Amino acid sequence: MGKIYNRSLPSEEIDNSSACFGKYTLKEYLELIKAFHSHVAPGLLAGGIMVDIAMRGLPAGILFNAFCETYKCLPDAVQLLTPCTVGNGWLRVLDFGRFAICLYEKNTGRGIRVFLDAKKIRDLRAINTWFFKLQPKNLQDPNLLFAEIKRAGETIYSTQKVKVLDQHLEKKRIGERSICKICGEAYPANHGIICRACQGQIPYLSEN
Amino acid sequence: MGKIYNRSLPSEEIDNSSACFGKYTLKEYLELIKAFHSHVAPGLLAGGIMVDIAMRGLPAGILFNAFCETYKCLPDAVQLLTPCTVGNGWLRVLDFGRFAICLYEKNTGRGIRVFLDAKKIRDLRAINTWFFKLQPKNLQDPNLLFAEIKRAGETIYSTQKVKVLDQHLEKKRIGERSICKICGEAYPANHGIICRACQGQIPYLSEN
Repeated sequence: MGKIYNRSLPSEEIDNSSACFGKYTLKEYLELIKAFHSHVAPGLLAGGIMVDIAMRGLPAGILFNAFCETYKCLPDAVQLLTPCTVGNGWLRVLDFGRFAICLYEKNTGRGIRVFLDAKKIRDLRAINTWFFKLQPKNLQDPNLLFAEIKRAGETIYSTQKVKVLDQHLEKKRIGERSICKICGEAYPANHGIICRACQGQIPYLSEN
Repeated sequence: MGKIYNRSLPSEEIDNSSACFGKYTLKEYLELIKAFHSHVAPGLLAGGIMVDIAMRGLPAGILFNAFCETYKCLPDAVQLLTPCTVGNGWLRVLDFGRFAICLYEKNTGRGIRVFLDAKKIRDLRAINTWFFKLQPKNLQDPNLLFAEIKRAGETIYSTQKVKVLDQHLEKKRIGERSICKICGEAYPANHGIICRACQGQIPYLSEN
């Protein structure tokens, strides 16, 4: 059927685990990754373990939001394993390039941050090589890397209790809409007298 | 099973259409929305139609990337109906607050932009009220709105041919990693002598 249905497993080697990723077995989670993310990236496997750690660190039954501190891989682990997505506004991505996520209670801002701890992977050659890009990707052995991530389990991550600052707890509202005098399209009035695209921020040109 | 499996339909009224959203029927697409986005938002239905228009405007069989010009709803339509996600880097979100998407061929940057055209919804009361926030959400009738979006079909959107500027076609690479002297975590060396979080951009405080 396409993106979510009809998934095939990428690696027999890691097919037999009964480890759980949210409501999914490892096998189901790997199928979801392939369907959604298009390839089974090691960052998604690590991300799934991180989401699991974070979820267990939150009180049961609360409504929570999420941050990812990188655009690489982790946003998709959060989107697949929690209710938080970019489009529903419950997941926000920070361009810090740190391999970390944070889940926090919507109203109080109290939550847990989980990160891949560089100090804990020094002796894990495949993970260390992947994480610090010590070899070109095509020279790394993905099966070895997946097996090492899986074998390491939760031992390579660290956690922190965090409190999201109050100004970041308020929901960003688009507010009143204006019609841009340049392009004629609707945009949030608080962006200025013309829309941000017409202010020069647009990365493409119209060819019509 | 959770996020992707075991979905229930939100609205009987729009259950019978054979309209297609990518590889899904309307019914399947609405189920996916509910499972992924947590609620069946009108922006996802409109977004599904927009993705369909854009996909048909691309040559068959190409590899393409995507932009969304808002964080609201549209990123999830693109993520559900195309291979492009935030975590695989093929979808980038621009904070313009314009209800528009752009799909473009990966290498040439040539593609199509689709936007909800404010000029075309003046006589469609439910859509106009929703789009311009003319009434509080709880006073709007979601069934009326969904029916109107569905009945309007493709008539309320406009398209543009676009060319993504060359500097935005290059894949952003994280590059070499450093260890931040403040927090001890790995971060992209080109962010500066300490990581962006320690530069003061982090929206939460550690409570450990």
